[in-house]
Amino acid sequence: MTTSHQLSPAATRPAADAISRLFTPRSVAVIGASADPAKTAGRPVSYLLRHGYSGAIYPVNPKVDAIAGVRCYPDISSLPEVPDVGIVLLGAERAHHAVRELAARGTGAAIVLASGYTETGAEGARRQAELVEAAGKMRLLGPNTIGLVNVTESIPLSASGALEMEQFPAGGIGVVSQSGGILGAVLSRAAARGVGLSKLVSTSNEADLDLSDFIDYLADDPATRVIALYVESVRHPDKFRAAALKAAKAGKPVVAFKIGRSEAGARAAVSHTGAMAGADRMYDALFAQVGIIRAQAFSDLIDIPAALAAGRRLNGKRIAVLTSTGGAGTLVSDSLGVSGFETPPPDTATAQQLRALQKGNHAALDRNPIDVTLAGLQPDLLRSAIRILLASPAYDAVAVIVGSSGLAMPHLMADAITDCLPESDKPVLAYVSPHAPEAAAVLNQRGVPAFSAPESCAVAFGAMLSVQRLVRNDDAPTPEAEFIDTTDLLPGPMDEAAAKQLFARFGVPGVREQEVGGAVQAEAAARNLGGQVVLKLLSSTITHKSDVGGVAVGVAPAEIGRRLEKMREDVQCHTGHAAERFLVQEMVNGGVELILGMHRDALGTAILLGMGGVTAELFQDTTMRLLPATGGLTRDEALAMIHELKTWPLLDGFRGRPKADVAALADAIVAFSAMAAAMGTRLAEAEINPIFVLPAGQGVRAADGVAVIGSQ
Amino acid sequence: MTTSHQLSPAATRPAADAISRLFTPRSVAVIGASADPAKTAGRPVSYLLRHGYSGAIYPVNPKVDAIAGVRCYPDISSLPEVPDVGIVLLGAERAHHAVRELAARGTGAAIVLASGYTETGAEGARRQAELVEAAGKMRLLGPNTIGLVNVTESIPLSASGALEMEQFPAGGIGVVSQSGGILGAVLSRAAARGVGLSKLVSTSNEADLDLSDFIDYLADDPATRVIALYVESVRHPDKFRAAALKAAKAGKPVVAFKIGRSEAGARAAVSHTGAMAGADRMYDALFAQVGIIRAQAFSDLIDIPAALAAGRRLNGKRIAVLTSTGGAGTLVSDSLGVSGFETPPPDTATAQQLRALQKGNHAALDRNPIDVTLAGLQPDLLRSAIRILLASPAYDAVAVIVGSSGLAMPHLMADAITDCLPESDKPVLAYVSPHAPEAAAVLNQRGVPAFSAPESCAVAFGAMLSVQRLVRNDDAPTPEAEFIDTTDLLPGPMDEAAAKQLFARFGVPGVREQEVGGAVQAEAAARNLGGQVVLKLLSSTITHKSDVGGVAVGVAPAEIGRRLEKMREDVQCHTGHAAERFLVQEMVNGGVELILGMHRDALGTAILLGMGGVTAELFQDTTMRLLPATGGLTRDEALAMIHELKTWPLLDGFRGRPKADVAALADAIVAFSAMAAAMGTRLAEAEINPIFVLPAGQGVRAADGVAVIGSQ
Repeated sequence: MTTSHQLSPAATRPAADAISRLFTPRSVAVIGASADPAKTAGRPVSYLLRHGYSGAIYPVNPKVDAIAGVRCYPDISSLPEVPDVGIVLLGAERAHHAVRELAARGTGAAIVLASGYTETGAEGARRQAELVEAAGKMRLLGPNTIGLVNVTESIPLSASGALEMEQFPAGGIGVVSQSGGILGAVLSRAAARGVGLSKLVSTSNEADLDLSDFIDYLADDPATRVIALYVESVRHPDKFRAAALKAAKAGKPVVAFKIGRSEAGARAAVSHTGAMAGADRMYDALFAQVGIIRAQAFSDLIDIPAALAAGRRLNGKRIAVLTSTGGAGTLVSDSLGVSGFETPPPDTATAQQLRALQKGNHAALDRNPIDVTLAGLQPDLLRSAIRILLASPAYDAVAVIVGSSGLAMPHLMADAITDCLPESDKPVLAYVSPHAPEAAAVLNQRGVPAFSAPESCAVAFGAMLSVQRLVRNDDAPTPEAEFIDTTDLLPGPMDEAAAKQLFARFGVPGVREQEVGGAVQAEAAARNLGGQVVLKLLSSTITHKSDVGGVAVGVAPAEIGRRLEKMREDVQCHTGHAAERFLVQEMVNGGVELILGMHRDALGTAILLGMGGVTAELFQDTTMRLLPATGGLTRDEALAMIHELKTWPLLDGFRGRPKADVAALADAIVAFSAMAAAMGTRLAEAEINPIFVLPAGQGVRAADGVAVIGSQ
Repeated sequence: MTTSHQLSPAATRPAADAISRLFTPRSVAVIGASADPAKTAGRPVSYLLRHGYSGAIYPVNPKVDAIAGVRCYPDISSLPEVPDVGIVLLGAERAHHAVRELAARGTGAAIVLASGYTETGAEGARRQAELVEAAGKMRLLGPNTIGLVNVTESIPLSASGALEMEQFPAGGIGVVSQSGGILGAVLSRAAARGVGLSKLVSTSNEADLDLSDFIDYLADDPATRVIALYVESVRHPDKFRAAALKAAKAGKPVVAFKIGRSEAGARAAVSHTGAMAGADRMYDALFAQVGIIRAQAFSDLIDIPAALAAGRRLNGKRIAVLTSTGGAGTLVSDSLGVSGFETPPPDTATAQQLRALQKGNHAALDRNPIDVTLAGLQPDLLRSAIRILLASPAYDAVAVIVGSSGLAMPHLMADAITDCLPESDKPVLAYVSPHAPEAAAVLNQRGVPAFSAPESCAVAFGAMLSVQRLVRNDDAPTPEAEFIDTTDLLPGPMDEAAAKQLFARFGVPGVREQEVGGAVQAEAAARNLGGQVVLKLLSSTITHKSDVGGVAVGVAPAEIGRRLEKMREDVQCHTGHAAERFLVQEMVNGGVELILGMHRDALGTAILLGMGGVTAELFQDTTMRLLPATGGLTRDEALAMIHELKTWPLLDGFRGRPKADVAALADAIVAFSAMAAAMGTRLAEAEINPIFVLPAGQGVRAADGVAVIGSQ
């Protein structure tokens, strides 16, 4: 993996080395440190001291001699040694001077907190370029960052107000956030819940070190088991892909919360694919392809990593819910059911074992939720019940409900579960029903993921299953594509016939059709094709043909001459232009209509497959795959896309329909994607809408197409 | 409203009187009180004392003289006065004795905590009947209840462990829960967040007083502004409807969280409507019709009432997001965007006012989110910014983000907002980004709904809009239905032709068709109908005709004889029975296919409208309305159903299609619903699938139908 990129051509120090020094510096210079700990510029020194940093701290401030008893230096040149890290607290007008001096002294990396850079416009972008230039070979975090925190070794290089809290449990979750405020939110929320973190960093403007550099680093960090991302925008998709795949290979799940879901993402384009693809759906595709789990709610960004960090495998969907309060147990099992999990009653042997625990005549233990309210909350009984459920072949995991006992006895459930955990490798989650933060914290600290939202249990179990289900095809060899010459194509939009001829060159068959100039030719063409035909206006500029009266379906050969003249009139009337070229096409009957298109944006090139037809457009039933850097999609990926459609049953013999030619459709997707990969940016837009999938053995037919050749 | 029902025929004391005594008793007897406050039976006396109950407490326990300094009585007969309320803490074996004695002394109401009643099976049900009989005219809460809490006046009649907490802010939210554990969860969670409650009750087994009785009471309770429900099952739908409408008329929104969403709800039935309707969707329809807002996530059950209790109206979708931390502001505005809200930048005048607040050159104040991070967190600036946004005609509401300042200065934002609230009636919500519970509690206590999930802002604003959008048609006069005689119909399933004739009696037109017995008749019928026709097997027992080869579409008159003979063979082959009757139908072209059906369960009778056809079945695009007790649906309701379909655009001229005859469809829905209402349980099942809606002016046609006449 390369770490150099356009903005910092001179940054030759490897990112991993710089990040290592950032997280575990032997010495830290704090440029512009204030003696007032209430001020932002006073926080970094104050937090380093408060959280017991054992390295050297060098505050730099010409106006004071010492800060909180630590000797202060008047300037960077007077520092007694080269610091590993410089935290620059100066404003944007002066920060680059400090950065230049730190770089000149050979500092490993600088953290620049000031805002007023690219996020504010052109003048800020100029300032940011100046900052990068000043850093030279020294690596930069920020600007506009809140810094980073090494929780594993209790080293905070940050001004985040969240560090006001006294303690942060160390654990296995590494956090990379493109927002400083979110870093503080995750840090404080995780701490309050007893969820252990390893490293946190806010990359913010990413003038140099970015999201991917830290994913790459955390993939190697022994303390980190799961990586949580707060993403605003991926600036270097290839680097991001590589880092995510490295984490996946290291067995470290990556969970991302990405904002920008509400952006329309549509753009003025000839094809529909752009509007359906959308910027946010491109991220969905990217994440799915590199094995990243997307957090849907913000709380999931802590809940899912907390669940995965426990490191237990979920091998099925059958969950035992053990409750000490009836209502909450039902609440959790209801939510599990909505998410597709099962909560079957205990099998005969398990039920018998549970009944044997009881002294009185309480029937509730042989149902699921398994209700121990009546039987009381004796630790022995709880422990035995958990042990039985973990051992039972009827269940894949256990969800334990903590009732109001969590208020008076916060350790009760945690003690019982902890005793049982070593005997089983099944996952155990806890839902804390009342507001009982201590009970939740104790559970999390003992490695039992504990949630305060009943829905989180289903989200967490779901993420466990998807970690195991992820297919990482990004490394799969893409099919060898034979060379197909397209150098003859001129820039600009192609007409429908030419577009389909292009697709056919790459192996996507089109309908039989013939270009005609007038009524006589049209009738001959129609008789040649046989039966009823489709008559269309042929134009490279008018793409919404039906809007101008340019499409007629089911035309008999005898009528086509008259119909063509009428079309000529209609088009003239709508567009003011005389239509000179027409297309006579065979009618396709009995197939399923799909759309197959290509979409490009900053993230890469995606292939979109969707159900066609009017109803489908209302339901937006589509799926996407980003192309790997190496070529087109594999046949397996194409088949997976087909199966992902909600309307997949329509292709699979739903309600007595014939099975569609899925093999031919997969071939067409592979061919279409190979075209997109081979032509690269020369192909600005491409879409087949509709492509008919005929019954098995009869293939597919592109019935209409759009292609735009780019100017270079 | 009547409060008597089957289980307690002798309970003649009005529910409202009994509930009033339950919430504000002058004296409370606690039967089976334990001297150990750690035991469940020790809690009620302990909690009454802890939370400062000023009435008389009479513990009843023959084994001790006093509990926590309160004199104890050996039995109910020795109590010095008739208590307003008796809390019965005895087990199910003995509770009914205490209830009988309390009733005999004239006690107003008894609360029975014991479990072991209907929830455990037949023996428990017998015990519960015994309990009801023992209560006589005295009203009962429970059994299997955790009791109730009057927060307004600090009177806890409950054993909920949540009462261990020291303080509960009083406020405007009344809570009725069918689970005791959930009562504790809501009580403790609301208290931790500073969300004020009025009254809470757990109705649980509802042997007597139920959900509806308490909704009815809270609709009149001056302290209650919003009613929150935790619903497992509505036992008396008519009573529930009446109570909900009473609350709506009193201007008190009702918010319900209902479990049971994962139940399949399908049943073995002739029609598809049953499977598509489902038990949970019946609740959706019921709630929507009586103006109840359904909470989707459990946390919404506190968040939405907290937002509505602030009592401010939202008059549009344009939200200003004011933030002191960049990332969290974007997070909230992104989530607002996903939910259909707008976050436009300030208009020129507002931007100018905001800029005038700034000392430096910070551009961020003229965007939305309006970011005051740079400008610092001076209280004056915050106050001025909030004031400007509240006064701006560009915004309908303000969402304020509390950043890490909430940790060190929990009052900062609350102070600023509180100062501005009196000057505007627009809603203000707050999102607290870090874990800063004190900041959230201060905001909530000052009447500014504050959330810790960014998504909650959108949920809360959405609920505010839906409160205002709710149309309460339940009182609307249903159309006068003319009497239509159906006494001639015999019990059992009807064949397709007879079913459509029944629907036609009530005013739903069917396709033209003719019953035939053989090939000759069929050809004559086909020639009579003209053009291509549909040939179907006619049978009252074989309902899935196409599965047995019993449907042929697009048959020409010349072919129909041969086709009929083939159908006879196919049916014989599939079913082993000789087909004797067939139906020849006109082909309907150019219409939109819908399904119109009826579904009945314990909640009532619903009319279901859905998009028909193969694709629609995969997307389950349906909508439902429950019939009011008084008759069928109104035309407005029918039109509203049509507009609710996702595929409504298909009826409304989507992509150049002709507009469909929506007026005729509305008439058909009204007619079909009038039939369901008039025939009552005599009509066991009824469904038209498909009903074709033709282009405007051409009406609708029922093309296939199912009806089953019940045995009584």
